[in-house]
Amino acid sequence: MAVETLDTVGHAWPRADARDKVRGAALYLEDVRISGMLYGRVYRSPHPHARILRVDTSRAEALSGVIGIVTGAELPFLHGESLVDEPFLARDKVRYVGEAVAVVAALDQQTADEAVRLIDVEFEELPAVYDALTASQPGAPIVHEQLGSYRHAPGITPIAATNVCNHFTLRKGDVDAAFPSCDRIFEDTFSTPMQNHCVLEPHGAICQFTEDGRITVWTHNDSPYRARKEIADAFGVQMSDVRIISAPNIGGNFGGKGGLKAEAFAAAIAWKLRGRPVRVVFSRDEEFASSIGRHASQTRMKTGVMNNGTIVAREVEVYLDSGAYAEKGPTVARFCGVSAAGPYTIPNVKVNVYCVYTNKTTSGAMRGYGGPQACWAYESQMDMIARALALDPVELRLRQIYRDGDQHVTGQRLASSGVSICVEKVAKAMQWRDRERKPDTGIGIACMERAVKTPFGSGAFLKINEDGSADIMSSSTEVGQGIDTALRQIAAEELGVPMERIRKAAPDTAFTAYDASTTSSRSIFHMGNAVRLAAADAKAQLKTLAAAHGLDASTNIAEILRVAYGSSGTVLGRGYFYPQTEDERSEYYTRTMAFWLEGAAGAEVHVDRETGRVTVLKIWGAFDAGKAINPLNCEGQIEGGIAMGLGFAVGEEITFKNGIVLNTSFLGYSVPLAPDVPPIEPIIVEHPHPDGPFGAKGMAETTNVPVPPAIANAIEDAVGVRIRHLPITPEKILDALRRQAR
Amino acid sequence: MAVETLDTVGHAWPRADARDKVRGAALYLEDVRISGMLYGRVYRSPHPHARILRVDTSRAEALSGVIGIVTGAELPFLHGESLVDEPFLARDKVRYVGEAVAVVAALDQQTADEAVRLIDVEFEELPAVYDALTASQPGAPIVHEQLGSYRHAPGITPIAATNVCNHFTLRKGDVDAAFPSCDRIFEDTFSTPMQNHCVLEPHGAICQFTEDGRITVWTHNDSPYRARKEIADAFGVQMSDVRIISAPNIGGNFGGKGGLKAEAFAAAIAWKLRGRPVRVVFSRDEEFASSIGRHASQTRMKTGVMNNGTIVAREVEVYLDSGAYAEKGPTVARFCGVSAAGPYTIPNVKVNVYCVYTNKTTSGAMRGYGGPQACWAYESQMDMIARALALDPVELRLRQIYRDGDQHVTGQRLASSGVSICVEKVAKAMQWRDRERKPDTGIGIACMERAVKTPFGSGAFLKINEDGSADIMSSSTEVGQGIDTALRQIAAEELGVPMERIRKAAPDTAFTAYDASTTSSRSIFHMGNAVRLAAADAKAQLKTLAAAHGLDASTNIAEILRVAYGSSGTVLGRGYFYPQTEDERSEYYTRTMAFWLEGAAGAEVHVDRETGRVTVLKIWGAFDAGKAINPLNCEGQIEGGIAMGLGFAVGEEITFKNGIVLNTSFLGYSVPLAPDVPPIEPIIVEHPHPDGPFGAKGMAETTNVPVPPAIANAIEDAVGVRIRHLPITPEKILDALRRQAR
Repeated sequence: MAVETLDTVGHAWPRADARDKVRGAALYLEDVRISGMLYGRVYRSPHPHARILRVDTSRAEALSGVIGIVTGAELPFLHGESLVDEPFLARDKVRYVGEAVAVVAALDQQTADEAVRLIDVEFEELPAVYDALTASQPGAPIVHEQLGSYRHAPGITPIAATNVCNHFTLRKGDVDAAFPSCDRIFEDTFSTPMQNHCVLEPHGAICQFTEDGRITVWTHNDSPYRARKEIADAFGVQMSDVRIISAPNIGGNFGGKGGLKAEAFAAAIAWKLRGRPVRVVFSRDEEFASSIGRHASQTRMKTGVMNNGTIVAREVEVYLDSGAYAEKGPTVARFCGVSAAGPYTIPNVKVNVYCVYTNKTTSGAMRGYGGPQACWAYESQMDMIARALALDPVELRLRQIYRDGDQHVTGQRLASSGVSICVEKVAKAMQWRDRERKPDTGIGIACMERAVKTPFGSGAFLKINEDGSADIMSSSTEVGQGIDTALRQIAAEELGVPMERIRKAAPDTAFTAYDASTTSSRSIFHMGNAVRLAAADAKAQLKTLAAAHGLDASTNIAEILRVAYGSSGTVLGRGYFYPQTEDERSEYYTRTMAFWLEGAAGAEVHVDRETGRVTVLKIWGAFDAGKAINPLNCEGQIEGGIAMGLGFAVGEEITFKNGIVLNTSFLGYSVPLAPDVPPIEPIIVEHPHPDGPFGAKGMAETTNVPVPPAIANAIEDAVGVRIRHLPITPEKILDALRRQAR
Repeated sequence: MAVETLDTVGHAWPRADARDKVRGAALYLEDVRISGMLYGRVYRSPHPHARILRVDTSRAEALSGVIGIVTGAELPFLHGESLVDEPFLARDKVRYVGEAVAVVAALDQQTADEAVRLIDVEFEELPAVYDALTASQPGAPIVHEQLGSYRHAPGITPIAATNVCNHFTLRKGDVDAAFPSCDRIFEDTFSTPMQNHCVLEPHGAICQFTEDGRITVWTHNDSPYRARKEIADAFGVQMSDVRIISAPNIGGNFGGKGGLKAEAFAAAIAWKLRGRPVRVVFSRDEEFASSIGRHASQTRMKTGVMNNGTIVAREVEVYLDSGAYAEKGPTVARFCGVSAAGPYTIPNVKVNVYCVYTNKTTSGAMRGYGGPQACWAYESQMDMIARALALDPVELRLRQIYRDGDQHVTGQRLASSGVSICVEKVAKAMQWRDRERKPDTGIGIACMERAVKTPFGSGAFLKINEDGSADIMSSSTEVGQGIDTALRQIAAEELGVPMERIRKAAPDTAFTAYDASTTSSRSIFHMGNAVRLAAADAKAQLKTLAAAHGLDASTNIAEILRVAYGSSGTVLGRGYFYPQTEDERSEYYTRTMAFWLEGAAGAEVHVDRETGRVTVLKIWGAFDAGKAINPLNCEGQIEGGIAMGLGFAVGEEITFKNGIVLNTSFLGYSVPLAPDVPPIEPIIVEHPHPDGPFGAKGMAETTNVPVPPAIANAIEDAVGVRIRHLPITPEKILDALRRQAR
């Protein structure tokens, strides 16, 4: 194969989808229309917790243009990724305001919307619970009486007859024995609110059940294979009977497009109206009140340290508010739990994370996935310890931070750990020691680690075309993160052809190979390896073909195919990556993680003592990419994540009253706009991972995680007040300043 | 792997698509809508041969709702499979009535239709030629002045400065030396008319050019990879930049949906309106006048025989009317040519086939592909010889018919030849010797052979799902012939799982592997082998996995995957079949054919001497499937092909006047309807092919081929008249009876 001078791995390729998106030519799910397609709309519960006594759809059915209505009574199926607890439509009772009770399908959207208003449901209200801590106490109203009987994945520990849908535990050493020997004990509580993904494209799906037993779903789910499994399991069909076709482009994800959202409702009504495709797209109201958000959390952190700053013992108790259903809460709890003690070597650790049902909008996966809640606590308290012991916060961190070869609190030996480098790079970039301090201005730093979803595999096909160009076939979804571009770079590098000769289309479970999910920043590592292996497989076959036809090793691919097949043949590569685990112990969470996401952020803030307003002046972010396959993508991920972390720090919060979401539009929910984002300095750390493709590992998902504590730490540095409860509003600053003054 | 009692290969599975088609749930190209999609319509030439002096689109452009118009002057590209001669839109001149000159895109179809009527083109008429024989003579108007400079595939011999776009020759022995030594010389001319495919679904395509350099075409082309190559070549882009997405179902093909039809026009206007998807669907008028049909033919056949019936020498000269462009004509000529002497061992053979341009609607691929024209001549003359020598027609055939191990006239040693068995089976079924003869009733028989498209490869992927179900990924298109069902049976057999666990979706060049085409009845053999190899590859991997995890060989697939990967993994198979050729001689046509299609038909007719009306009472058809993977499919193919052969025999004919098609609807074109089709007795012959999957080879395409001569032979048996020119109309019968009476 001719090795040309190639700009492949390591080159800052702009994303292939960028120009089409800017110019309006990019197709989304919204653009997919099928003749004969019906339009669906969901009837949603007005009550947080109520028994359904009667559903009367007769007036709605009588409306001209209504083709059919499906109610929960007709659908005995449940779905759910780690815990199968969610009906496609509520059956006996509703568990939150906004829960789906029925789906109408009509000839047009207006008729469907109108029909929903004609549905008459008789409810009997039940006592409700709105807070994870309260919900976990004995005597609280029970959200799921059947919790003990639900099917669930291994490694999940629901507690029957309670609201705890997963109780995660982690133990190392003996905290109870260690605490008395410590010089100082720090015990604090921290909390974070529910955050919304705020993606531009709302959830949607089109579904058709055909007579040949196939279920086709056109959607933008982030993980086609997982969605397929949930639907196949629910409807009791074979996986090959369910086809998930990804839209050509996806308008944002951040974890919100996993699980079954609009897919469940489109499937429910399509199942009833056998043969007719039905489309269900959420309104912005539904996005805020009936989709998912980030788990609100309450954390109690007790840390025992010696006067020199050595942390001897740490006990962490986290309550995650799951809302009405488990969704991905049980595994969010696990990911929160394994990192809850922070990226530090601590001899004694005790972690309990409770994922608790309440009568509120369900929470689920969102960028960071348990990381932001954990990091907010451990990195806030780290600065509180430093301040109390008069130690430098950076030094305190670096003293006990994980490094290559350290044993993680889970027991895993860390092959590669870049978190210390990230802290050092941020400190250096922000001139940690020497930065000039203006009045009411401060700087803060925070670092983080989080596990990647493990152990789950990824497969890929790669086919060589007759002209030597190639197509990657991968179920990784391009949700705006740039995975398509990065995978093309990896394949181009491995094949030794220019990047422009490689394409990748959106996934389709009829074609693209199994992939666990496009989540957890796992794709560049898992799918990157699978694609690299598929390309290597194809390359090896080409080499054999070339040799068999007496061709020189430098012959280009098209010429090899021409000689071998007369341009009527191809070469097909396959690659499969399943991370090898160091141990296979029975407890699910202790399995070795394929890699750890690591990074650090620094912030400089100014606090207006009159108004309490915090102005973030600059944010630095260093994240370990192992190897930046595409530095432009990595920088974009750092910038985007930091903006999201900023929003979580200083403004975003879904507010509830009696279980009702009060802010269901961008008017009442303050996501940062472009002018709100300060200068950002992205720093890519390349500490190679031995198992990653070209040393790469994921870094994108958690670039938001250390931002809120870095800002809170900077605020304390600026004006000496400590905010423990996100978001950091002017009211909280003013209140703290007032208390400080007293 | 557990081997269950499986109904896989050999089982008469109804086609999976059948119920959805009957109940209206099956999606076709017509059902694909994309928001923002424009509607196209083609302006077509009113002249058979004319110079384009001026194209004025200003009035059309001014029409509200018209978004754009593209004319040939803007598009310097040509396309064409074997000879690249066809502009996307006519440039300097038009060559037939109905040739595309411009394409309008508008917001709706009505506006596009109206705009076309506002286009004003100034033509200068040129002398035209309407007949292949005339067109091949010196001094005839030249349809393509540039013929000598067109790019073309190897094995095609265009003659510059003439209208002959391919001159095919085949020589064996020395006919000139042999004819004088023969007892009798038979020299006859035969002809066949242009036939239309008459598929229910007209040609259509949707095309979009996006900013990332990709060209996406939603279509129902029978051969996605060939269409991709033609578009990539024409627009000068890489193959991976062109994506052909097959519609979920295709409403009939018979060869008509190959090449670029509506695709060319959708691409031309989409190329101009970068970013906007545009849809072009033909009207039924366009289907008849501006699509393609079967080549009208004129054949001179000179045969020298001994008095005992032994054929010593045969000289065949065939003129195929290509119409305005070559399309697949050059290879139709080749396929006609290699079989023109019939399936008989003849020591001296000389064949010339001329594919000739005329100023008429282009002809191209149609079921039989050169076979019906050839067979009409050689099987008509065979009975004329038998009658003249007072020999039994069946005995005469069987005396010199090909059998296993014989050397074909092309030089190929025939590994497997079932044609003699087909003749014997038909003769037995119709009680050839003992059939009771009623007045004016007769029986006839005919047999045929035709080569399969060779040498061209097929590739397939097969992926195993986590639950042990599997998806076949193949570029074979399901055009109603049942290939999806048959491939699923092959994969199920090889994997040892029930048929219901295997699915196959419609092709998509972004995913499904290279396949030369879904034509020529090649799929069951080539793709069947590829799918079988892909399944075997997956099975071997599963076996290795099972052994590595200490599992019993009988463990089912899902369990192997669960143990190996915790349900988070898969196994990916790939298979590639490229037929091995016995020789690699330089002349293209002499390459060994992967297999030969073989069969025989018998007919019983009654002739009404008063009206000339022929009533076909029954038709028998025996065709060699090697092994019937799905007997129900094979029977359906025999029945469908016989109905099509019946239409060609007794009624179908595209009629022209001055290059204008007179019958552009089903009112004027008499395709047989259900009540017109007599009882058919399908006979499946299973003479295993050594290289076929489970012994199978193709049989579907040529089941129409022997029907017309069988009917003509039966007519002579009934009333003693010989019809040499199709279709056999009552007028021709009456005329012949009148001449017989004189």
